[in-house]
Amino acid sequence: MVKDRIKNLRDLMIKYNIDAYIVPTSDPHQSEYIAKYYKTREYISGFTGSAGTFAITKNKAGLWTDGRYFIQAAKELEGSGIDLYKMGLEGTPTIIEFVNNEVEENGVVAFDGETYSYADYLNLKNSLVNKKIESNRDLIDEIWENRPNKPSDKVFLHDVNYAGATTEEKISEVRDFMEKNKVDYYLLSSLDDISYLLNIRGLDVDYNPVVLSYVLINKDKARLFVDLKKLDEKIISNLKLNGVEVEEYEAIFEQLQDLDPTKTIYFNPNRVNVRLFNSIPENINKKTGIDFTTSMKAVKNTTEIKNQRNAYIKDGVALVKFLNWVEENVSSNKEITEMDCSRRLLEFRKEQELFIEPSFETISAYGENAALPHYSPSDESPVYLRSKGLYLVDSGGQYLDGTTDITRTIALGDLTEDEKLHYTLTLRSHILLMLTIFKKGTKSSALDIIARQPLWEKGIDFNHGTGHGVGYFLACHEGPQNISPRHNNIDMIPGMITSNEPGVYIEGSHGIRIENIMLCIDKFQTKFGDFYGFESLSLCPIDTKPVIKELLREEEVQWLNEYHNRCYKELSKYLDGKDLEYLKEKTKAI
Amino acid sequence: MVKDRIKNLRDLMIKYNIDAYIVPTSDPHQSEYIAKYYKTREYISGFTGSAGTFAITKNKAGLWTDGRYFIQAAKELEGSGIDLYKMGLEGTPTIIEFVNNEVEENGVVAFDGETYSYADYLNLKNSLVNKKIESNRDLIDEIWENRPNKPSDKVFLHDVNYAGATTEEKISEVRDFMEKNKVDYYLLSSLDDISYLLNIRGLDVDYNPVVLSYVLINKDKARLFVDLKKLDEKIISNLKLNGVEVEEYEAIFEQLQDLDPTKTIYFNPNRVNVRLFNSIPENINKKTGIDFTTSMKAVKNTTEIKNQRNAYIKDGVALVKFLNWVEENVSSNKEITEMDCSRRLLEFRKEQELFIEPSFETISAYGENAALPHYSPSDESPVYLRSKGLYLVDSGGQYLDGTTDITRTIALGDLTEDEKLHYTLTLRSHILLMLTIFKKGTKSSALDIIARQPLWEKGIDFNHGTGHGVGYFLACHEGPQNISPRHNNIDMIPGMITSNEPGVYIEGSHGIRIENIMLCIDKFQTKFGDFYGFESLSLCPIDTKPVIKELLREEEVQWLNEYHNRCYKELSKYLDGKDLEYLKEKTKAI
Repeated sequence: MVKDRIKNLRDLMIKYNIDAYIVPTSDPHQSEYIAKYYKTREYISGFTGSAGTFAITKNKAGLWTDGRYFIQAAKELEGSGIDLYKMGLEGTPTIIEFVNNEVEENGVVAFDGETYSYADYLNLKNSLVNKKIESNRDLIDEIWENRPNKPSDKVFLHDVNYAGATTEEKISEVRDFMEKNKVDYYLLSSLDDISYLLNIRGLDVDYNPVVLSYVLINKDKARLFVDLKKLDEKIISNLKLNGVEVEEYEAIFEQLQDLDPTKTIYFNPNRVNVRLFNSIPENINKKTGIDFTTSMKAVKNTTEIKNQRNAYIKDGVALVKFLNWVEENVSSNKEITEMDCSRRLLEFRKEQELFIEPSFETISAYGENAALPHYSPSDESPVYLRSKGLYLVDSGGQYLDGTTDITRTIALGDLTEDEKLHYTLTLRSHILLMLTIFKKGTKSSALDIIARQPLWEKGIDFNHGTGHGVGYFLACHEGPQNISPRHNNIDMIPGMITSNEPGVYIEGSHGIRIENIMLCIDKFQTKFGDFYGFESLSLCPIDTKPVIKELLREEEVQWLNEYHNRCYKELSKYLDGKDLEYLKEKTKAI
Repeated sequence: MVKDRIKNLRDLMIKYNIDAYIVPTSDPHQSEYIAKYYKTREYISGFTGSAGTFAITKNKAGLWTDGRYFIQAAKELEGSGIDLYKMGLEGTPTIIEFVNNEVEENGVVAFDGETYSYADYLNLKNSLVNKKIESNRDLIDEIWENRPNKPSDKVFLHDVNYAGATTEEKISEVRDFMEKNKVDYYLLSSLDDISYLLNIRGLDVDYNPVVLSYVLINKDKARLFVDLKKLDEKIISNLKLNGVEVEEYEAIFEQLQDLDPTKTIYFNPNRVNVRLFNSIPENINKKTGIDFTTSMKAVKNTTEIKNQRNAYIKDGVALVKFLNWVEENVSSNKEITEMDCSRRLLEFRKEQELFIEPSFETISAYGENAALPHYSPSDESPVYLRSKGLYLVDSGGQYLDGTTDITRTIALGDLTEDEKLHYTLTLRSHILLMLTIFKKGTKSSALDIIARQPLWEKGIDFNHGTGHGVGYFLACHEGPQNISPRHNNIDMIPGMITSNEPGVYIEGSHGIRIENIMLCIDKFQTKFGDFYGFESLSLCPIDTKPVIKELLREEEVQWLNEYHNRCYKELSKYLDGKDLEYLKEKTKAI
């Protein structure tokens, strides 16, 4: 099937005289999760992971993806004729190097400009040697029969009792940024930032409650560009009350052209697409950088923090019920598959108040499947849980009062010495990051090495970041902070919410990840400065069965026992019967 | 005196219509240590530290320096009318902000272009708002009566038995870089890089055995620009044998003008001065980046490593004799000053083979003076060592077979609980960095947080980097790697030699620093990648008297005992009598 699609695409390339065609994973807003309508890369390559880029020439086709997906992509690309390019490994050419090598002088490189950020386009343009670029070609649209429609679900308000600040207050803060930076217009294209700013939510994208839209703000006006059929009267009047006018989604392109060219516009070149950029008057003064709203949104206000705490308690209750259910079924030799687990977990979450949807596709992985950090189970190839080895579940929920994301790995029976060792090392990584105290001004990425130390000491590493920012009833992955080996110039500051998810993955054998979401908090102030630390928001027992206690330091054991004490205290009131017994058992001090 | 100089400078500024004048700490090669002739910033400000910039307008004069020098600069500037600007502290304006604020529209900002790197000049030019720049004004020269002469000492060869590679081999490696980067000319201005490349040394600068010179390389020719009076026949013929021609120092400017403007030149904009840049044909293709030679020089070859090991043994022997001498004198109530110690230490180093000179000015600091990380003792205000508290000595030697740098802090008698605690924490910082294992690709600066953790946990920090690269019979501070909170995109790789020098500084009370020089080494290779670590080159007992053993982890105690075991094994054969007894006592396991 993929082979046919690739043939159709190559036919079109010949028709339009195109020598290379690039399909990123993207929508017009450079979102991480995208509506089905925009899943062109998945359609053409067959690779279902959340990140990757496809590129094709007359003779070669390739898919570029990162370490999270090496194993999965290799499986899914089998027999397609598409080569897998493992990003980040020595010797792997970049897409640009690939295109430069494969396309002859004056050859044409094409893509759909709405799916390309201006920054990526610039990079491509500056790096291609003697090639022509066409940025207005959506070739996948021409070959994609029965392409899904654009999303059309209704937009709804996120009440200020959840948001903690009104749209008017937030826009006023944006205008302060604009004044300080001498900016007349601010063009915003990031969907989670728009939802945050306007206290609106929608169901346009799986897992992220956002609304396909653009925002344009000047000193007096704020305009929301959106499919107007999605808005009811209540929303429109609420937005109006907060000083926001609404316009049709596609009207942004024309209205940008009408901006006063003597003024200054600000935007994030990584989030504004090429078509949008080309609509901005050429001579207008352009300032670029990270979205103002991204910095605002990253530091949660007291209402958001209070609500997030509550959401994490509810999520913990669902998790405990689920883990008990898994262990009961396995120990009583009932046949359950990874997919059964995934469905059952969703049921438990649905029992919780204000639950809307999962915050990403649940990773429910038994045994060697857990060695794929972003494994997706399926009913087509059911995998049954057995009473030995490790089972990993990475999942999350969207609640009106918070976004959750948690990973637990539990022993279903006897474990090998390696499984125990790797579990204990992963736990040490997790705890060391949780316990770390750092000075104000520490960059978020600088914390990464803290978590890797216990693994590196044993010659082990994991091929993904240690932590990502987490949204508030928004994207489960949000910026600007992250904890990763790649340098990030963003300070970690109190109010930021970030995941802590080290892991060990042994291909063909087992995989372990332990993930809690942490709130950055003030620890103390001395004459040497302000010092910060973390507090776990996630509350759910961490399996102690696989732990080799002698490998833990005293303070690590203490953290684990105190954490379990807190889990029991916070969750026990919402559990009874066997679930309560399970919680009690699972939170016993070691 | 400084006041008179400032008056004279302001008179000249009026004469030439200059509104702001900037004096960096620099020579035409952007060296860290500079010849007396170039110490214009020290002359005009009275501040004797190694880093700082002076700026003056009609009404204000300021000195900018970093955390190492806050206390010292405040003392030295007292009564001068010069304000101290503490770099890196919140609210401190940069020099550019200062000039923008203080100088009116169209005002003239001037400096001596030979002392300004092209990168700094560009930054200044791009950041000044509506100001004129004059880059050819050496005003200090006009007011400096009895300015010292430029250095004139003879150049000498660094034998290939020490260098481990011939000049010809090194130049050939540079030409490989040039070919790979499609570069026709390579302009080199960094003095330590030139000395390294040509296997020559000189005494033009205190502490760094370099030669004031430039180098220009193309495919066929390598030219050294130097004061020809410094070269004897032997050097000239040796250079010729290695394919290097010699020219007068100042001839570089004319010869740059004659370069073929259709070719490509490579240089480091941070090391090439404005006058040099202005001599390069305007239309020639310019490529810029870190000097090729800096990357080559950072990774020591096997001969260099072998020799460095030997130099560190000799240096350790001198140190042990010195520390024994200090403890003996203090315990027998002999009156010795910080300066006496500094002189005696130099005598002990002079006893060692191949010793040339100190590698920097010895910091010999008793009690509260040690709280100044870069304190200089003086005979004018003698400070006597007493049999209580801590004494810190940070010193190093230039040997034909290596450059050393070491800090020890020793207890001279009873200590306070704080002194013991801070000593133990500093030792933990030092050991944690020494023990760390990291994956290939880890940036040098990413290791900084490893050393700071034990201090941050207690709300303590030190206001300087944790480690700097160390040269080989060259600059004691050399790049490109460093271990510091400021991000540095340079991988730490085997063969690099770097200091490990955390500290605790309590103003008005005490100061502690423990410094060893470490060699980056291969640790092991697993299926997850290559892992690196460190090995101490420095060999000299670390005082265990102040150590609170219960605060050390088992593996930290083990490192300390093994290190002392190694010190005894390596140093004992070169010591006898009381010195050997002292070594034995000081290397006892705890």
